[in-house]
Amino acid sequence: MKKFEEKTTETEVIFEGKIVNLQVDTVELPNGKHSKRELIKHPGAVAIVAITEENKIVLVEQFRKPLEKSIIEIPAGKLEYGEDPVDTGLRELQEETGYEAERLIPITSFYTSPGFADELIHIYLAENITKMENPPPGDEDEFVEIIEVGLAEAKAFVEEQRICDAKTNYAILYLEMMGILK
Amino acid sequence: MKKFEEKTTETEVIFEGKIVNLQVDTVELPNGKHSKRELIKHPGAVAIVAITEENKIVLVEQFRKPLEKSIIEIPAGKLEYGEDPVDTGLRELQEETGYEAERLIPITSFYTSPGFADELIHIYLAENITKMENPPPGDEDEFVEIIEVGLAEAKAFVEEQRICDAKTNYAILYLEMMGILK
Repeated sequence: MKKFEEKTTETEVIFEGKIVNLQVDTVELPNGKHSKRELIKHPGAVAIVAITEENKIVLVEQFRKPLEKSIIEIPAGKLEYGEDPVDTGLRELQEETGYEAERLIPITSFYTSPGFADELIHIYLAENITKMENPPPGDEDEFVEIIEVGLAEAKAFVEEQRICDAKTNYAILYLEMMGILK
Repeated sequence: MKKFEEKTTETEVIFEGKIVNLQVDTVELPNGKHSKRELIKHPGAVAIVAITEENKIVLVEQFRKPLEKSIIEIPAGKLEYGEDPVDTGLRELQEETGYEAERLIPITSFYTSPGFADELIHIYLAENITKMENPPPGDEDEFVEIIEVGLAEAKAFVEEQRICDAKTNYAILYLEMMGILK
């Protein structure tokens, strides 16, 4: 839908990084006036809900520099432009958790910060996961700890804000709504 | 929690805007190596779940430049640094929807994109909303349309990804889990 479309009249690229690009667009508003929009371009990400044989959800705790603290999330990874999200997801799951999945089932997608960023996250359900004997090493600069919790405990974490990450909280409640998490 | 803390050894400020700032930090990792982190600084935001007398959720549709399309969300607004989130929330609700709330009840908070941004969103429930005769004008560059839906329809929108915004989807499912939305 293009309702209230804002037409770009000028784009100023401010920064091109490894994770994000930043540009400032000048736009023509529906009333003919002009305004500026600060836009973060992000390749999008994949996040994985993986359930163990013991019916526990696999979570990871890692330090998030923007927050200056470590938080609990479902395993996730940034897409490479043009890469199949399933390949990203299978790899990130292995690297971050040491679990190998037989396949990934697409569940849903959503935008995380539509006011200033185009990041789209795809949620997948990992089917038939097994612990790998020799998981691939993760990114050199990534340190994670695995936490496995049942649905009731996960929901308690959500309620107490021990999990306070939009994709993780939403994925847990969404998969319960769909009858997939029990 | 500071597990796996990454200590900042250098900060390069790239951009200071009206909505976001961008900086690149050099960090010392837990293993003593160094890496770079691209960080978006955002003041945070408030989002409001407002329920009408007819038990409908008040949603707004607006054009989101980062996505180049209009999407459906709960009313929300960026915090001003130092501003009380409740004041932001009451004002944004009035400006975007023309509804006045008797009070806002804090529900939960979460990070939207912890991998690259510090944005924290606070969800409030608006109590006893009434249509204003003369609502305050919104931001000059903001154009919104109001949509009111019941819980069943909202959940169908979530499932069909007609609503595809993390804060909105999560807020709807969270408030249902808490027995507040029925």
